[in-house]
Amino acid sequence: MTERSAAAGPRDRRSLSESTRVEAFSDGVIAIAITLLVLELRVPALDPKDPGRLASDLLHDWPHYSAYVISFLVIGVMWVNHHSVFRDIVRVDRMLMFLNLILLLSIAVIPFPTAVVAQYITGAPADARAAAVLYSVVSFLVGVSFSGVRLWTLAHPYLLSPTVNLAAARAVRRQLGFYVGGIAYALLIVVALISPIACMLGHVVMALYYVGERLPKHTTD
Amino acid sequence: MTERSAAAGPRDRRSLSESTRVEAFSDGVIAIAITLLVLELRVPALDPKDPGRLASDLLHDWPHYSAYVISFLVIGVMWVNHHSVFRDIVRVDRMLMFLNLILLLSIAVIPFPTAVVAQYITGAPADARAAAVLYSVVSFLVGVSFSGVRLWTLAHPYLLSPTVNLAAARAVRRQLGFYVGGIAYALLIVVALISPIACMLGHVVMALYYVGERLPKHTTD
Amino acid sequence: MTERSAAAGPRDRRSLSESTRVEAFSDGVIAIAITLLVLELRVPALDPKDPGRLASDLLHDWPHYSAYVISFLVIGVMWVNHHSVFRDIVRVDRMLMFLNLILLLSIAVIPFPTAVVAQYITGAPADARAAAVLYSVVSFLVGVSFSGVRLWTLAHPYLLSPTVNLAAARAVRRQLGFYVGGIAYALLIVVALISPIACMLGHVVMALYYVGERLPKHTTD
Amino acid sequence: MTERSAAAGPRDRRSLSESTRVEAFSDGVIAIAITLLVLELRVPALDPKDPGRLASDLLHDWPHYSAYVISFLVIGVMWVNHHSVFRDIVRVDRMLMFLNLILLLSIAVIPFPTAVVAQYITGAPADARAAAVLYSVVSFLVGVSFSGVRLWTLAHPYLLSPTVNLAAARAVRRQLGFYVGGIAYALLIVVALISPIACMLGHVVMALYYVGERLPKHTTD
Repeated sequence: MTERSAAAGPRDRRSLSESTRVEAFSDGVIAIAITLLVLELRVPALDPKDPGRLASDLLHDWPHYSAYVISFLVIGVMWVNHHSVFRDIVRVDRMLMFLNLILLLSIAVIPFPTAVVAQYITGAPADARAAAVLYSVVSFLVGVSFSGVRLWTLAHPYLLSPTVNLAAARAVRRQLGFYVGGIAYALLIVVALISPIACMLGHVVMALYYVGERLPKHTTD
Repeated sequence: MTERSAAAGPRDRRSLSESTRVEAFSDGVIAIAITLLVLELRVPALDPKDPGRLASDLLHDWPHYSAYVISFLVIGVMWVNHHSVFRDIVRVDRMLMFLNLILLLSIAVIPFPTAVVAQYITGAPADARAAAVLYSVVSFLVGVSFSGVRLWTLAHPYLLSPTVNLAAARAVRRQLGFYVGGIAYALLIVVALISPIACMLGHVVMALYYVGERLPKHTTD
Repeated sequence: MTERSAAAGPRDRRSLSESTRVEAFSDGVIAIAITLLVLELRVPALDPKDPGRLASDLLHDWPHYSAYVISFLVIGVMWVNHHSVFRDIVRVDRMLMFLNLILLLSIAVIPFPTAVVAQYITGAPADARAAAVLYSVVSFLVGVSFSGVRLWTLAHPYLLSPTVNLAAARAVRRQLGFYVGGIAYALLIVVALISPIACMLGHVVMALYYVGERLPKHTTD
Repeated sequence: MTERSAAAGPRDRRSLSESTRVEAFSDGVIAIAITLLVLELRVPALDPKDPGRLASDLLHDWPHYSAYVISFLVIGVMWVNHHSVFRDIVRVDRMLMFLNLILLLSIAVIPFPTAVVAQYITGAPADARAAAVLYSVVSFLVGVSFSGVRLWTLAHPYLLSPTVNLAAARAVRRQLGFYVGGIAYALLIVVALISPIACMLGHVVMALYYVGERLPKHTTD
């Protein structure tokens, strides 16, 4: 507790509200990124010489709708997990703000690989592979950034709520669960090279896996 | 009440704020989706060889403005109703977060069918029908997702405010009003196949219907 | 005061927070609309056969930057005034939500006439006139919607804060200041037909006029 | 203290919440601007006659990804600093709202020079120079607007928190640190004319410089 008390003090009240504001800003960025996904759904071009094709054109665009649904789930689950990570954080320092900014940078870019996958997943095999690799690399960056945020706060416990059991929280660094995200997304980069479709299904599986609570609770409330 | 007390306990305070944060995130997504509608309004292309046509070009685009107004009302009313549903919810579990994510996914996609309807409603009959069907299918998904959220909370009453009269709230599942949305939007899919214009007018009527309060109050405040 | 007390009662606490949530939603929509303005600024097309023209291409696009600045001020000032109007509102009913939705619909559409003006204000006279008329019609709709919100709350005083001096607040309906916005924007529609540039300068003047506080205070705090 | 007390009084509570609302609105605009950056990342066009080129096309677009990362950091750091500036502000007047609006206008436009730099930085030297000048001019405007907000509040101390040590806060106006941003961004405009790439690296250095806390604390909490 001494480690924490030393750092705490007159700035407490301000820093507390700073943590709330960082969380609100992150929520805003994630909410915008998830909603911008719809802009990648293009209205089929109207060919005045060949009308009546809208229904088949819409059905033909199924990779775009699939990509929309997958990325909506992926970003939605990231939002839930961002929330879980910040639940235990009550103060922020400049480095944590910077690490969180890198995390937001990786989440906010997801509409781009989503659009690339939607466009190329049914195309030439080399293009489908490149698209799935891009998508997996971005997911891997998100996973690494999440770990960065968590490791920084574990190493600087005065950023954490006093209700967090520090020894238990730090123990996760020696547990497999902490590394599941990073390992899985690294594997999906390899899977992308073999089967782009299997890779994208892997992202769905990962999103559904993270719908469940994967962050151990170490608070004593 | 026992059902509720059993589940309540040490996590109450946290879960309460979690419900607020889910609501704020949902508000953000809906506010962004409703504002993105404007991006579907295209500036008429300038033809340097035939200037002076802007006024008639703008008037010619009336289906786009109508679609903007209709979808703005539709999403606006969905926001009000999302608010009404969450008014009684004071805790969230992972499944509720997931169901709410599906609901947001369906609301956030509305700018896409809006743009499709704006482009095709005055085109070939087959295209106009396909566009109106697409719009109605999305609305139906929104209605079903709303029901999913409500049914889940009724089945897990510890998520609800203690001021909710559970017996009365659960009775809605045996009342027609609860199913009006689903039935109406399913009917509008059929109407779309007969008259796309009538279908879109039906969506206006539904939005105006939901401007009134349709969620029965069962709280004892 | 009886008029107000009659309506007040058990729903007070809930309605109060509902007013805050309507305000937060409106803030969100206005913040998004003002930020979407940047999407109308297009990167000059690169002509590989004639490089080195970016500087002159950028300077040539001055109407786009002017339109961006004008609309940013216009929407920014609308945000301030929306805030002023809702400062006195502590409860919302369904009709007020609907009127506020119409107001948001008119504000959120502003990026569209902004893009039209930017594209056509330096074009053929007939096109410049049509663009300025469109811009002024949208501004007029915003003004009328603002009046609708204010008139509704004056007619339903239980929506207003108890600190509002109702007699003084209602007196504005007999004062010229209340109608300045509507009259000025109606006049600008006419000006648009004579001189589109003068019309747009008029919008700047109106925005600067509203930077000052134009809503009389009738509260007794 | 008299200067402050004179201005304070019955409006305090309202003005306090007004400051919070201005901050929330600014947060919203900045969160949207930073997330809109992703829209400048374009999916490589599919050439049906020459498939299999996605990987090389993506690698070829490295200036776009670099520009995305740079501007994400730049806007992110601006958000942190906006927060630092408003930490000491507890009241807002109309002029402060107006100055903050100019600041938001300059921040919200950043996706535009970002897209211009991404498109032209590897093009003809004259175009690369023009792009980097544009980017630096916008950054300079942001810096000047920040100074405007700070100078206004220092000249009107009743806008500041009572915990601010006014003499110490005002002393910054005679210190170099206060002018570092303005001078550096003015210099980067000149650097842009010599080496556009060096200029963009300069923006990265400035962003990293501002990751550290550069606003002296003068509060007595």
